[in-house]
Amino acid sequence: MTSFAPPPSSPLLIVISGPSGVGKDTVIQRMKERNLPIHFVVTATTRPPRPDERHGVDYFFVSREAFARMIEEDELLEYAIVYGDYKGIPKQQVREALASGKDVIMRIDVQGAATVRKLAPEAVLIFLTTETEEELVRRLERRKTESPEDLKLRIATARQELKRMHEFDYVVVNREFALEETVDTIIAIIDAEHHRTVPRKVVL
Amino acid sequence: MTSFAPPPSSPLLIVISGPSGVGKDTVIQRMKERNLPIHFVVTATTRPPRPDERHGVDYFFVSREAFARMIEEDELLEYAIVYGDYKGIPKQQVREALASGKDVIMRIDVQGAATVRKLAPEAVLIFLTTETEEELVRRLERRKTESPEDLKLRIATARQELKRMHEFDYVVVNREFALEETVDTIIAIIDAEHHRTVPRKVVL
Repeated sequence: MTSFAPPPSSPLLIVISGPSGVGKDTVIQRMKERNLPIHFVVTATTRPPRPDERHGVDYFFVSREAFARMIEEDELLEYAIVYGDYKGIPKQQVREALASGKDVIMRIDVQGAATVRKLAPEAVLIFLTTETEEELVRRLERRKTESPEDLKLRIATARQELKRMHEFDYVVVNREFALEETVDTIIAIIDAEHHRTVPRKVVL
Repeated sequence: MTSFAPPPSSPLLIVISGPSGVGKDTVIQRMKERNLPIHFVVTATTRPPRPDERHGVDYFFVSREAFARMIEEDELLEYAIVYGDYKGIPKQQVREALASGKDVIMRIDVQGAATVRKLAPEAVLIFLTTETEEELVRRLERRKTESPEDLKLRIATARQELKRMHEFDYVVVNREFALEETVDTIIAIIDAEHHRTVPRKVVL
């Protein structure tokens, strides 16, 4: 048999980013429920768990001391202080998932996404946004975990982050009451990327 | 309201190409049946209609004299002699569809796709292929419209065309008994392309 098909595509490194409150966690949670052959990176963080968040599933909740050690040992692909708490991507976890042939999805703040772009230019960067600023405010208020000062800071930051949208490959509006549509679009992006003639081969 | 969403994306110019017999017409026929807001270009051709093909719907079947006049009057975006028959894309039809805000899909041979790339670098080029050469042979034989010499010529041409796959943006394997999957993938590509942060704005 003479093959007329291209070689199988490489696993993708996909970054889901966007302002705080835009719905990154909810979108990823919904994607997990679809049982796709994707590895969802478990981020390490020093922030306390929100209700329903489980250690090792939603995040690795670690002490500041443990986090400092991970930085020291160069175990993090990328890390940042996000609103006073450290968040970082365990490097080995990403490498192993890619080596197993699975696409890898990670959720990172906008600043961190830019770092990943430098480390892995072939990563697929997706910017999540809301339809309007007012909608972002409503979502942050609904969360009831931020003080009024925190909230103001997050909105100001979101305005700045929006200006960096063009550094990403794709932008998806996470519309209210349209979570499935957001997830469908992200899955379409992943599907399309697997059909590029010039594959995005990630080396980490 | 302060918008946090990107401006609406531009209509896309999508080219579906690939070797003769790969299933371009079948894929496009199935896409039409899904009632998507897409304009499917009606190509002008001097070849005689196959059974079930309708003038003005599947193709504009025109005489060689009429075709020559269209070339002369610069009414074609692209044209080529494909296995002895002329095929061409009416320019005005594409312009009008894009101006109305609709994505435009056109089916062109591999050579012609390269021409479109030069005329419209922002076009989305999709290369359709079969899984194996043997599969392409079977499909051409099933068509029963080609002589044995024609068949040999088409296979030899397909081998050459495959080497040009990398000039396209995407490659989709049109697997046997998986027409819906092929169509789903093309729709995913279109969906993804509409979410690029840097839109593909086509000027013709």
